[in-house]
Amino acid sequence: MPTLADIAQLLNCPAPAGAERVSINAVAAIDEATADQITLVNSERYATQLSTTQAAAAIVQRRVKVPAEWENRSLFVDDTDLASIKVLELFAPPVPKPPIGIDPTARVAPSAQLADGVAVGPNVVVGNDARIGRGTVLHAGVFVGDNVAVGEQCEFFPHAVIRERITIGSRVIIHAGSVLGTDGFGYRWDGRQHLKVPQIGTIIVDDDVEIGSCVCIDRAKFGATRIGRGTKIDNLVQVGHNVQIGPHCIIVGQVGLAGSAKLGAGVVLGGQCAVRDHVQMGDGAAGAACSAVAEDVPPQTIVSGTPALPHRQSLREQAALRRLPDLVVQVRKLQEQIKELQKHIAG
Amino acid sequence: MPTLADIAQLLNCPAPAGAERVSINAVAAIDEATADQITLVNSERYATQLSTTQAAAAIVQRRVKVPAEWENRSLFVDDTDLASIKVLELFAPPVPKPPIGIDPTARVAPSAQLADGVAVGPNVVVGNDARIGRGTVLHAGVFVGDNVAVGEQCEFFPHAVIRERITIGSRVIIHAGSVLGTDGFGYRWDGRQHLKVPQIGTIIVDDDVEIGSCVCIDRAKFGATRIGRGTKIDNLVQVGHNVQIGPHCIIVGQVGLAGSAKLGAGVVLGGQCAVRDHVQMGDGAAGAACSAVAEDVPPQTIVSGTPALPHRQSLREQAALRRLPDLVVQVRKLQEQIKELQKHIAG
Amino acid sequence: MPTLADIAQLLNCPAPAGAERVSINAVAAIDEATADQITLVNSERYATQLSTTQAAAAIVQRRVKVPAEWENRSLFVDDTDLASIKVLELFAPPVPKPPIGIDPTARVAPSAQLADGVAVGPNVVVGNDARIGRGTVLHAGVFVGDNVAVGEQCEFFPHAVIRERITIGSRVIIHAGSVLGTDGFGYRWDGRQHLKVPQIGTIIVDDDVEIGSCVCIDRAKFGATRIGRGTKIDNLVQVGHNVQIGPHCIIVGQVGLAGSAKLGAGVVLGGQCAVRDHVQMGDGAAGAACSAVAEDVPPQTIVSGTPALPHRQSLREQAALRRLPDLVVQVRKLQEQIKELQKHIAG
Repeated sequence: MPTLADIAQLLNCPAPAGAERVSINAVAAIDEATADQITLVNSERYATQLSTTQAAAAIVQRRVKVPAEWENRSLFVDDTDLASIKVLELFAPPVPKPPIGIDPTARVAPSAQLADGVAVGPNVVVGNDARIGRGTVLHAGVFVGDNVAVGEQCEFFPHAVIRERITIGSRVIIHAGSVLGTDGFGYRWDGRQHLKVPQIGTIIVDDDVEIGSCVCIDRAKFGATRIGRGTKIDNLVQVGHNVQIGPHCIIVGQVGLAGSAKLGAGVVLGGQCAVRDHVQMGDGAAGAACSAVAEDVPPQTIVSGTPALPHRQSLREQAALRRLPDLVVQVRKLQEQIKELQKHIAG
Repeated sequence: MPTLADIAQLLNCPAPAGAERVSINAVAAIDEATADQITLVNSERYATQLSTTQAAAAIVQRRVKVPAEWENRSLFVDDTDLASIKVLELFAPPVPKPPIGIDPTARVAPSAQLADGVAVGPNVVVGNDARIGRGTVLHAGVFVGDNVAVGEQCEFFPHAVIRERITIGSRVIIHAGSVLGTDGFGYRWDGRQHLKVPQIGTIIVDDDVEIGSCVCIDRAKFGATRIGRGTKIDNLVQVGHNVQIGPHCIIVGQVGLAGSAKLGAGVVLGGQCAVRDHVQMGDGAAGAACSAVAEDVPPQTIVSGTPALPHRQSLREQAALRRLPDLVVQVRKLQEQIKELQKHIAG
Repeated sequence: MPTLADIAQLLNCPAPAGAERVSINAVAAIDEATADQITLVNSERYATQLSTTQAAAAIVQRRVKVPAEWENRSLFVDDTDLASIKVLELFAPPVPKPPIGIDPTARVAPSAQLADGVAVGPNVVVGNDARIGRGTVLHAGVFVGDNVAVGEQCEFFPHAVIRERITIGSRVIIHAGSVLGTDGFGYRWDGRQHLKVPQIGTIIVDDDVEIGSCVCIDRAKFGATRIGRGTKIDNLVQVGHNVQIGPHCIIVGQVGLAGSAKLGAGVVLGGQCAVRDHVQMGDGAAGAACSAVAEDVPPQTIVSGTPALPHRQSLREQAALRRLPDLVVQVRKLQEQIKELQKHIAG
């Protein structure tokens, strides 16, 4: 079990006196921590709870004031978020994985190529001519279709489905239950029925992408749907055919991207945000949670609302809307006053 | 096949004359019922359809008037909803389950502990040191990770995924395709990339919870995401890391709860409602369908709209908004009238 | 590899001179096409890009003007959408399918009836007394419950779950990860707990329906949830119990249909649209993306907004809302002017 001194060393910050005698067995929230746990204090609000917490010690944002008795139980750091990553890694239990090799219940096509160190769990299916890179882990029930190419050190969680002809980079994580490669949603009414537009394209997922659970990414009509390097996608997100997502985007849960939407680098979309088909958002643009982005958004611009407007305008309209019921009354009163004035003058 | 008299006895209400000669083979909607079926009438609106229905009999809310010829074909009850539960149970076909024991295609770790009466279906995976309580049913393709603890009489439907180190109470139902235990969505930009914040916590699901299909519940960053006793969650709901849901909540389809949101007891969230991260809703609070709850909600308070406001205020604003286009015209007219008056007086 | 002449023949349009010497290996977007690919031009906007594209040829909407040098590299058609369907079919790689017969890892109940030409992939489960029609394909991990009836030439993609007693027509496509037959979401508070209302009904899916990935369709409380002939449903859609969807509807991604909602023929719902329980939408009605349909919608009527209003009214309100912040200022100014006038007159 690490000591407070070990943690101080890990975070590269001064250790309080006696820190080598304080054992720490976990990170815990300030109101749940027990006497052998460490907590995180990144604001004055949490600092006030230090007087009542049971925690043995705290990692504290440098500018935050702590009670005097906490001075020698605190590790002061420049950035509690970065510090928490290191400390959580220290305490992280290993994620169970199937052993390297092919589970006897897995169905791997003879023509599939598995590099060294690949782990294939129970009931996994790997199709013809699929290629799986070194160290990649396929958990139970994963489906990898024909001609899929997967890079190195990827991890696909149970029941993830990667259909045929998709290309996935290295260090890509796909969580349980997600589906890549469903046909894009395209039909053409012929007067009697909706004709299906063939969706013959593919999907390209770049390196270091993480995809949550129950995410649906559709294959392109032709060409490719693309997810840029380092982009992170939360659960239950819909990515339509031919969508182009740039690198390092953050797509929060339940977002919907309609066909051919295009996001630049570092775009952030809040939960349940919807982006209309063919809409383009520039580098560093953002759509607020629950907003409906129906027009192109310039780089570095935040939009919000339904339909989404520049955030400042949206806030102004919301503020005005709060006053609207009163405004209706005021206008009625003005109408009466004017009628009075008109009568007076006419008289 | 039960008779109308049997059903009267079940509902503890008087049987009409001859009820023992009327066989009933199903419950059906008033406009679909055939001559050997019973229907439900809980409002005057349905009562008017009694004159045309083919149904043999009706269960009628006591205060509702029925046509004279229906007096002796109706069972009058205090609460048609409660009555319908009893009658539907009477006609419910049994839900097929795998037989007790372990299917030969299932992969149960030797160190897993299965209590008496557990049924493990085809292609199920149960991980190391998992514990499954008495009478629990794991349908085909269910994945239960290492060190998961499941209580008694649970039922997990096909392909549900319960990842490692999660604790689930008794009589919990998890429907097909849901995923518990995906990493929470947490990253920290380091200037070059999004660093992944380790998500080392767990999930605790209390007794008598029901979880729909394709629901995603993320594990906590540290500590636990919690679903309180008796809470019911519909399909396609997103529950972020460290969310705390109290007992007896009702979470309708496609709701999204962002990280660390906290719901008290008996909170109701309508379909597609979104709750911002760290927002707290008090006991008995409610968020309307399609609302976006961005601020704390006191107990017993209904909010609606995007952003969500107290429901009465929201209704007032909506009503005023309906008049807004006219208001714009009225204000323009007022401006002209005032200009006239000013001219008149100046003249 | 087809030539441009072959494609001209396929589209029944004149071939430019030398078309039989131009080989085409794929369809590609105008800004991505290489020298052996054909592109699509359905608007002037794309036509202007013809001067810079590398494409060998183009399929052009008849009314669109192309640069002179493109006259003899263009195939002019009445409808590029219909033409694209034919050309995409020409280049479509075959979708991999399990071979006809039953994979040795599949679990097919002895009492199940499989017609000729059925393909059952790895780890598929087919329950007791299920009936699968001629030529239907069940990809890896599909679950078909007891007493399910499936028509001919259907295709269910990996891990789709069709629970017991459901009826599915012919030529129905269900994409990976979708779940049909989960209990409808119905409870009754008894003062202590939410009693579960038994959901004993079923689902009927008509011919030629296509259902995307991670779609949830709940079984009826009693009677049937119905999806009409030729209706197309995108990913992550929620269909509540007893919903009735007419023929030829288009339901875009992340739509939510609450219990007993009823759609006529040819209804279109944009992405994330929500329809309240028991609401009826007439034939040819439409709900815009992100709208919340809370009241019945007459036939051939488009509604938009939250709550949804007739689209024209919604647009008028949105336009007025854009002016609301200014309106607040104008009203304040009017109030001051009137005060001035009143003072003047009183004086």
